Amino acid sequence: MAEDIISEVDVPPFNRSAVDGYAVRAEDTFGASELKPVNLRIIGSVDIGVNSKLHVGKEVAIKIMTGASLPKGSDAVVMVEHTRVKGKNIAVSAPVTPGKNVSEKGEDVKAGAVVLGRGCLLRPQDVGMLASMGKTRVRVSRRPEVAILATGSELRKPGERLGRAEVTDINSYSLAAAVERFGGLPHRLGIVPDESEELKRALRKAISYDVVLASGGSSVGEHDIMPDVIAELGELMFHGVAIRPGGPTAFGIIKSKPIFALPGFPVSSLIAFDMLVGSALRQMQGLPADRGYPKVWARLARKVSSTLGRADIVRVRIRTEEEGLMADPIRVTGSSVLSSMTKADGFVIVPEDVEGFDEGKIVEVELYR
Amino acid sequence: MAEDIISEVDVPPFNRSAVDGYAVRAEDTFGASELKPVNLRIIGSVDIGVNSKLHVGKEVAIKIMTGASLPKGSDAVVMVEHTRVKGKNIAVSAPVTPGKNVSEKGEDVKAGAVVLGRGCLLRPQDVGMLASMGKTRVRVSRRPEVAILATGSELRKPGERLGRAEVTDINSYSLAAAVERFGGLPHRLGIVPDESEELKRALRKAISYDVVLASGGSSVGEHDIMPDVIAELGELMFHGVAIRPGGPTAFGIIKSKPIFALPGFPVSSLIAFDMLVGSALRQMQGLPADRGYPKVWARLARKVSSTLGRADIVRVRIRTEEEGLMADPIRVTGSSVLSSMTKADGFVIVPEDVEGFDEGKIVEVELYR
Repeated sequence: MAEDIISEVDVPPFNRSAVDGYAVRAEDTFGASELKPVNLRIIGSVDIGVNSKLHVGKEVAIKIMTGASLPKGSDAVVMVEHTRVKGKNIAVSAPVTPGKNVSEKGEDVKAGAVVLGRGCLLRPQDVGMLASMGKTRVRVSRRPEVAILATGSELRKPGERLGRAEVTDINSYSLAAAVERFGGLPHRLGIVPDESEELKRALRKAISYDVVLASGGSSVGEHDIMPDVIAELGELMFHGVAIRPGGPTAFGIIKSKPIFALPGFPVSSLIAFDMLVGSALRQMQGLPADRGYPKVWARLARKVSSTLGRADIVRVRIRTEEEGLMADPIRVTGSSVLSSMTKADGFVIVPEDVEGFDEGKIVEVELYR
Repeated sequence: MAEDIISEVDVPPFNRSAVDGYAVRAEDTFGASELKPVNLRIIGSVDIGVNSKLHVGKEVAIKIMTGASLPKGSDAVVMVEHTRVKGKNIAVSAPVTPGKNVSEKGEDVKAGAVVLGRGCLLRPQDVGMLASMGKTRVRVSRRPEVAILATGSELRKPGERLGRAEVTDINSYSLAAAVERFGGLPHRLGIVPDESEELKRALRKAISYDVVLASGGSSVGEHDIMPDVIAELGELMFHGVAIRPGGPTAFGIIKSKPIFALPGFPVSSLIAFDMLVGSALRQMQGLPADRGYPKVWARLARKVSSTLGRADIVRVRIRTEEEGLMADPIRVTGSSVLSSMTKADGFVIVPEDVEGFDEGKIVEVELYR
């Protein structure tokens, strides 16, 4: 939502019955019991969608459907289960208090109330609420259009035969899926060789979108020309982030468009996306600037080590034990091991100011969804 | 996924460097330290995408990029940070063990291994894994096509002016959003008056889809002709479910197509969807037959009462306290109160065999997402 939704009407718009039964004056039923039922005279019935002219006076009842408008004079509904018809009368075997089994006008939403706030994500019930308020058009945030460049002369398309030192472009596909998961619209612009002029040409085209993701070409070796290219075309804001995996990430702005240069390794690239890009995409849509992953608490099944000064993102598998959830850190030998993420249910962040977490520690796990 | 994905190739397809540095024979570096560095002769360099002909013999090193193929003869990579160039030599200041900083061929995925099982939901990393395996086309489950009928002569479209006893069609919109949330493709077929012949005509059309949802016309009053209509056209399997809200739900099969007749009240309708339809849609897609909502444990902020023999679905708000998550049950006076769901973060199920939960009890909360 990109606006506050204020109800112009009461929901429900009239007092209505919440059950099938008989509209009555509550006081007429006081003292009713199975042994001493109260007898009321049936003077008619009121259907859904019908505006009854009938009036409930003393010691009378009007048959009423669930959802039907409460007739004048009545202030409660006796459920059909607590009545027995005897000719033109009913025997009521349980008393009702005023308001019983009645959905009051404005009970759900009062006219003038803020019902859905700016920045909320519309769930099925929220869509229902908009319908109930007659809001057939509302302002929502535009989904960011995200350009994705796969940079690297060694890249080949999935399914293409690889030479001994060539690798498949994985990131432009996984990043496209990640962009969608965070509400953005991905546009894969293809593979760009990591040559300065080719990258510049590709970036100039890419900044016609709202955000640019480039993956590959941002580690600290000599082929990592992306940060220089960003600095040449615009402003390089930072290069290198104290996270692992995902450290060799750069960020800059070209003609007011944000450019994220993510690492080339598939796991590093996706985790850098999670840590930096996802929350940015959410904020662009007016959502809270977090990752939006559901969080659970779990007990660490074994110790995890980390390096001071760097946050470690540890992929874990979750299992349910009698004493609660357990998080099994997945053993990895290198950041290139994509299976560490496909096997994972979520991740734990070991912050930069600790050297790890002990076995048995209760940790917060963010769940991949 | 509607098939098991078995890797035909090793990922990575060759041993490659996980860092920028120097490819070496690990044994040549044993004993190296800051004070006593080991000197190795640089005999060349190997780039990404290049298949080097060089061979690493005794006491030599080859400069290597992250991701580049490990040259023959070498079994480890020294990180550039642990070396100092001196003319044609490098001084190595830390030893490496065999395999150090090397992503081994097949380390991520071995040829022949089941990588993604039938029934998994593809997350960004799974899409990346498919790309890495060159799987550009895979079998996935078809999204169920779901027909949605709003039944009730009293219904008006959202935004239309309401007579005193008319109500807005909410459910066909909220149910459509719920269908999407559970992976289905909703088709709203409009409002149908609850007259037997009109319902039959609408149902005959609706069963051209995979699943039919009808909302309204299934409570126990006299206008609830939907179960009879289902029985006439096919087989009525059940009518009435021991849940609240959502009890007056019917289910039947017409010409092998499942028909859910959901209650007319918006909350009842959506909760009956959650309890019965959502898991069915998931199972049709090969997913686990649960609701798929993330679950958290929380402490009940106040007692909730329930009726024996009926499961109560209690909407709750979640807040974080120092001692953990707290679940605040939302007070409701009738099942028609849609705001009880729009204000809720999730729900707690009080099972049919208990009379409620005490304040302070740790309960499982399923989170709306």
